[in-house]
Amino acid sequence: MTSQPQTPLLDKVRYPADLRELEDRDLPQLAHEVRDEMIDAVSKTGGHLGAGLGVVELTIAIHKVFDTPNDRLIFDVGHQCYPHKILTGRRDRIRTLRQEGGLSGFTKRAESVYDPFGAAHSSTSISAGLGMAVAADLSGSDRKVIAVIGDGAMSAGMAYEALNNAGALDARLIVILNDNDMSIAPPTGAMSAYLARLASGRTYMGFRDLGKKLTAYLGKNIDRAITRAVGHARGYVTGGTMFEEMGFYHIGPIDGHSFEHLLPVLRNVRDNGQGPVLIHVVTQKGKGYAPAEAAADKYHGVNKFDVITGTQAKAKPNAPSYTAVFGEALVQEATLDEKIVGITAAMPSGTGLDKLAEIFPKRTFDVGIAEQHAVTFAAGLAAEGFKPFCALYSTFLQRGYDQVVHDVAIQGLPVRFPIDRAGFVGADGPTHAGSFDTGFLASLPGFVVMAAADEAELKHMVRTAAAYNEGPISFRYPRGEGVGVQLPERGEILEIGKGRVMKQGTKVALLSFGTRLADCLLAAEDLDASGLSTTVADARFAKPLDHDLIRQLAREHAVLVTVEEGAVGGFGSQVMQFLAMEGLMDNGLKVRPLVLPDLWMEQAKPEVMYAKAGLDAAGIVSTVFKALGQSGVGVNAAG
Amino acid sequence: MTSQPQTPLLDKVRYPADLRELEDRDLPQLAHEVRDEMIDAVSKTGGHLGAGLGVVELTIAIHKVFDTPNDRLIFDVGHQCYPHKILTGRRDRIRTLRQEGGLSGFTKRAESVYDPFGAAHSSTSISAGLGMAVAADLSGSDRKVIAVIGDGAMSAGMAYEALNNAGALDARLIVILNDNDMSIAPPTGAMSAYLARLASGRTYMGFRDLGKKLTAYLGKNIDRAITRAVGHARGYVTGGTMFEEMGFYHIGPIDGHSFEHLLPVLRNVRDNGQGPVLIHVVTQKGKGYAPAEAAADKYHGVNKFDVITGTQAKAKPNAPSYTAVFGEALVQEATLDEKIVGITAAMPSGTGLDKLAEIFPKRTFDVGIAEQHAVTFAAGLAAEGFKPFCALYSTFLQRGYDQVVHDVAIQGLPVRFPIDRAGFVGADGPTHAGSFDTGFLASLPGFVVMAAADEAELKHMVRTAAAYNEGPISFRYPRGEGVGVQLPERGEILEIGKGRVMKQGTKVALLSFGTRLADCLLAAEDLDASGLSTTVADARFAKPLDHDLIRQLAREHAVLVTVEEGAVGGFGSQVMQFLAMEGLMDNGLKVRPLVLPDLWMEQAKPEVMYAKAGLDAAGIVSTVFKALGQSGVGVNAAG
Repeated sequence: MTSQPQTPLLDKVRYPADLRELEDRDLPQLAHEVRDEMIDAVSKTGGHLGAGLGVVELTIAIHKVFDTPNDRLIFDVGHQCYPHKILTGRRDRIRTLRQEGGLSGFTKRAESVYDPFGAAHSSTSISAGLGMAVAADLSGSDRKVIAVIGDGAMSAGMAYEALNNAGALDARLIVILNDNDMSIAPPTGAMSAYLARLASGRTYMGFRDLGKKLTAYLGKNIDRAITRAVGHARGYVTGGTMFEEMGFYHIGPIDGHSFEHLLPVLRNVRDNGQGPVLIHVVTQKGKGYAPAEAAADKYHGVNKFDVITGTQAKAKPNAPSYTAVFGEALVQEATLDEKIVGITAAMPSGTGLDKLAEIFPKRTFDVGIAEQHAVTFAAGLAAEGFKPFCALYSTFLQRGYDQVVHDVAIQGLPVRFPIDRAGFVGADGPTHAGSFDTGFLASLPGFVVMAAADEAELKHMVRTAAAYNEGPISFRYPRGEGVGVQLPERGEILEIGKGRVMKQGTKVALLSFGTRLADCLLAAEDLDASGLSTTVADARFAKPLDHDLIRQLAREHAVLVTVEEGAVGGFGSQVMQFLAMEGLMDNGLKVRPLVLPDLWMEQAKPEVMYAKAGLDAAGIVSTVFKALGQSGVGVNAAG
Repeated sequence: MTSQPQTPLLDKVRYPADLRELEDRDLPQLAHEVRDEMIDAVSKTGGHLGAGLGVVELTIAIHKVFDTPNDRLIFDVGHQCYPHKILTGRRDRIRTLRQEGGLSGFTKRAESVYDPFGAAHSSTSISAGLGMAVAADLSGSDRKVIAVIGDGAMSAGMAYEALNNAGALDARLIVILNDNDMSIAPPTGAMSAYLARLASGRTYMGFRDLGKKLTAYLGKNIDRAITRAVGHARGYVTGGTMFEEMGFYHIGPIDGHSFEHLLPVLRNVRDNGQGPVLIHVVTQKGKGYAPAEAAADKYHGVNKFDVITGTQAKAKPNAPSYTAVFGEALVQEATLDEKIVGITAAMPSGTGLDKLAEIFPKRTFDVGIAEQHAVTFAAGLAAEGFKPFCALYSTFLQRGYDQVVHDVAIQGLPVRFPIDRAGFVGADGPTHAGSFDTGFLASLPGFVVMAAADEAELKHMVRTAAAYNEGPISFRYPRGEGVGVQLPERGEILEIGKGRVMKQGTKVALLSFGTRLADCLLAAEDLDASGLSTTVADARFAKPLDHDLIRQLAREHAVLVTVEEGAVGGFGSQVMQFLAMEGLMDNGLKVRPLVLPDLWMEQAKPEVMYAKAGLDAAGIVSTVFKALGQSGVGVNAAG
């Protein structure tokens, strides 16, 4: 165990009020100590590092200038909130980040009054901040609202919708654009290029009437530092920056690591002006930690690491991750079928699509954080006979739901949806859990909805989706490693709507959809041992259901348990709908649909979460015993 | 029956190929005839009039210049597609628009090869068009793709996401911005104001390097008409238009009713250039029909009307519409509680929020076509102690689903969701049906999900939602008139999670969620008469369920039928999940969950659609008979 860094100044700062007691000249030292503290903490917990390192000065400056928590500070996404947590009463728990029972890796209302709006998905802060700013206006309060949003997050439509609305209102919203020219991956899209031009000075701030505007916004006492910050403006020009065209006052770009720039600008904006303002701050992701600065991804998300060398601990994998298996299987299919294309929304490595991009760069599209567009863009490609794989996390597919319904499903277009991060995701907690996709997809007429039970199944489903061209098709799989089964050379084409029986019994039927299959098989061993002869089947499809299989399970067993890594309304509901309308439950069949519990489960290791949810082998066994009115003690005799 | 208009030129044009045979000079006459034909047709069917009238010349010009259907023409939303339908082989059915068995009111792939991408929700066309343009590139085709999008649709984030992506690609996408300064209501937001400035000439086209750019894009043979169209550009300026900053070549604004402007611009763009281009066309909604031009809403959507006077037929209502009851009830509650605010996404009159806006303009927010932002903006207000009613149609709530999950539900913020257009919507068909909301909301932990059985219930639910401040709450109600019940002076506060028994029987239980209650009561009369003593209950809540009520229904009846105006995965699934986990189906209870059928049902009158779906009284009776193994003939004896 290495000793923790020396932080004499930070030791005096528990809350922002303490920080406000410091002199401006002390702040660079404080920033240094916050950085050391944060590096040390994340080296022990793993988590998001680069983003937080980039906003240390900005975070300190905001808390120094504004009256948090009365003034509202919202961090977009929340990846960059660790310095904020250290400075807002949570330093003592900072080494519990993302651990079970510990601090969330994101901002979270329930955790602190300094987190007025939680975030974990991107691009929500301007909308939330505008709501809060309007609330302040309606209440006659002069509270300030500050939303800090990264340049990557600006590719999302909802950020634009919020800017568009804010620009038409008078609300006193302060948007700080944290421009580090990096989202998780290098950003894509025209807005990103535009911001780069702005920041590089190749396009200068285009205040149409610089003097008049600044006077109007900031009042007469324009701080000299402001004048310096905007000093390279070319004077009177026609047309302003995009943000000005959208109704914002636009200040910057300014150096986000310089308190000499940050403090006077923030103080002026705090004390003067009206209407929405956007401060364009340029920062460096990973700033102040050499290994992060040198890394391509700026240590966006890291495992535990050695502070001196920056070397990250790597758990020895027992099996390839589902993501990797997907990525490789897609490359394999794409090599054989030139109509296959891949689409990712700013997550090339997270989805495994980076592998496709390496081999087929022209057939791989990173559209930015833009799930709505991703889905309909895929639909356009499908309408022209291409075979798009629109690879999203389950939780982010929610962003494109209307497009899935309206542009894909109603038109019956064969878009393939590989759905990663299905079920519990561990450290990222409830905001990233993949809970609802089976329900919201299987309710759509004409959709084919699959779940992979293991990594070999995933390979089959990639091939099946590639081969299936009759309409939309999805397949879900979890975060993390596979179970270690032998991978086939190439996936097989599965028969649509056909499950498989893994093991035949006579009394109890376990029908799994997804990777709970392994726990079902374990549960079956226990049940068999208790004298309850158990069938285990892998449904493979939530839609269309395997009617023959379900009929057989219903007719030939006393208990039917469905198991899935999803909320109510999904696979189990589909099965019960069929059973009910066919009258297959009329004769005393005991059906028990096991689903994710009806609560937002906090972060922990997935296996812990599934055990809590009663979805592990023990939970399944217990459900069967309960259904049969048995305690599980001495059940052999009753089997 | 009035005689149809004289259309000698149009009579020769069945398909765009015929149109291409005409001389340019004939086109104004053709436009005149198309307008007459369209006015006459819509006067007989009702439908969307103003938007189509505004794009007659544009539609003709596009088909004249481009090689449709090989070149792809996509109309955003589709409200404006009637002239296109008249010119693409569907004139003979144009008087069946929006009728059962007739033409769709929107573009639709299944209807015509001239509709390469269907639309009915707004702002999808650039995404779809970009997918098609990329497909053309990948295929080595020089096919052109043209997306026509209105200025109102530009407030939606997905349009921006698509522009952002397109601007970074080389694809040959032609976006025509149809700027009529009108969406359904007068447009809101900064983009709209910006476009108005562009169109008014107060901000001129900002080509940084006009000559160079046009030469690069259009090649050396710049048509003189182009030079005229862009003639008022001010020359060299710093910074371009927003569209240029987003990577588009930007041409315009040009007069969208002048073939002299349209044809040369379109021909130049067709024959020259590379990369994405945006042509800014100014049109007048309702153009060429005096009553439409004079009306505030430009006859956006109309009933049947008298062509001479423009007077619209008004069916005598039997009862106030649900929308009106909601609007009035909200005003009533807002009068008594100043924390209540209302939010609409460009549908003030469609949602009834115009009434709130009249009385409390500062507490009513029209955020534009921006459902994602609407939801999170509401969440921001709720976080500050306000009581936001975020009023959306069921089908459009799909656009904000991730925000409902991530910003509202996970944080447990008390945002109220009035959900209009629940269930079948009639003439607007499957794209506008409100089928999925109960499923995708009731699966969220902590959500309260209600449905109104009649307009008095709706009043109760408005008050209940106003009073409930513990977390998110929704209530759904259908399009159209209420059932004519007496309205209470003011709504009552319903007990959360409690249903009501309408009528007690002994053999059959009908448990309704929503306005199918009336049909359940009718069905019960029939069943009683057949000797099957029937209980009818109104669940009111899909979440939390009324466990006591459901237990009682399950224990005291042989058959339990749930009825809802929603897809599988919703109310019935919630009920079955509870029944199954409690073992309440283990003893032979016959459960029959009636839901919307698993298909995209085409437009018809809602009552016809419900009958087809087996969700009317006859369908419910038939389900009960079938469950009991009876044919319905001579059932009295078996009761």
